[in-house]
Amino acid sequence: MSIRVLGVDPGLTRCGVGVVDVEPSRKVKLVSVGVFKSETTLDGASRVGKIGAMLAQLIDEVKPESIAIERVYADSNVSTVMGTAQISGVVMYLANQRGIPVTLHTPTEVKAAVTGSGRANKEQVGKMVASILGLKEVPKPADAADSLAIAICHAWRALALGTGAASESITPAQKAWRSAEIAAAGARTAR
Amino acid sequence: MSIRVLGVDPGLTRCGVGVVDVEPSRKVKLVSVGVFKSETTLDGASRVGKIGAMLAQLIDEVKPESIAIERVYADSNVSTVMGTAQISGVVMYLANQRGIPVTLHTPTEVKAAVTGSGRANKEQVGKMVASILGLKEVPKPADAADSLAIAICHAWRALALGTGAASESITPAQKAWRSAEIAAAGARTAR
Repeated sequence: MSIRVLGVDPGLTRCGVGVVDVEPSRKVKLVSVGVFKSETTLDGASRVGKIGAMLAQLIDEVKPESIAIERVYADSNVSTVMGTAQISGVVMYLANQRGIPVTLHTPTEVKAAVTGSGRANKEQVGKMVASILGLKEVPKPADAADSLAIAICHAWRALALGTGAASESITPAQKAWRSAEIAAAGARTAR
Repeated sequence: MSIRVLGVDPGLTRCGVGVVDVEPSRKVKLVSVGVFKSETTLDGASRVGKIGAMLAQLIDEVKPESIAIERVYADSNVSTVMGTAQISGVVMYLANQRGIPVTLHTPTEVKAAVTGSGRANKEQVGKMVASILGLKEVPKPADAADSLAIAICHAWRALALGTGAASESITPAQKAWRSAEIAAAGARTAR
């Protein structure tokens, strides 16, 4: 009884997408990981449209129960922040259309959840992601590893909060997962 | 033989949407205007999803041949700029999915096209929009009037550029419009 989480590291040039299955025991299994790209020669709307179409196809294929996006702030790198926000908006729209809850996590939350330190660098995050998923190599490029870190962060935070998903709207699968988790906690307490 | 343009003043709290039909003579007719709102009590993804769903419905109803969005910069009002970019991304995605060309215009371009001055204020823009469309009152709120100004700006700029639409990808209707425009120009020259 696991829950499937899609993590998205949003971007217009490279959009990292990582899908993991997470068990109530916190065990995480890699489902798929990749990077969607759009040519910088295309106009902005075509780039958003292209990456959006790939995201929609992925969501319909892997059918995640929850989607987690890295939260970007307006005071981040100005040259890419607007494209990042545009892609985030598309992910929110696609998820909402399909009734899939969306949660945003800050880079600091993601780093802390995966490595134990909110100030970990990209290399440390990549290594921990590979270790958690039992992979021999760190997924490349960094956007791909980051998307998995976002998915793992979301699942573990949701488990820690005892909510199944860090959102008010939960799916039947998430409800089942929450129940299993509460039952497991009860069993531990009873021992 | 007119072309239908949807102008969008993107926003998460208020998203202005104005639809106009424009003739090659620059004559503009109001088709519809409104403002889509989302409650600030909803989470960000739900707000994007709600406004996105209303935008999709409007596009499918009025079937614009071209969509124009106000371009927002990362150094604008920081508290709203991310939501604005998210909605812009959704509009780009929806348009691209339907093969509708999207063009972005800066606030200065919009003001200049409608009032003749890139430094016009909201009130001046609203009055000129009402005058151009032959309306007795200025559309309220400002986001509604702005969306019409964006649509008018787009149509007039496209006409001035002689492209039918300020985009490489044009629809059959736009092609017909462009041909008519070239024929009209030829007739004027021939006189």
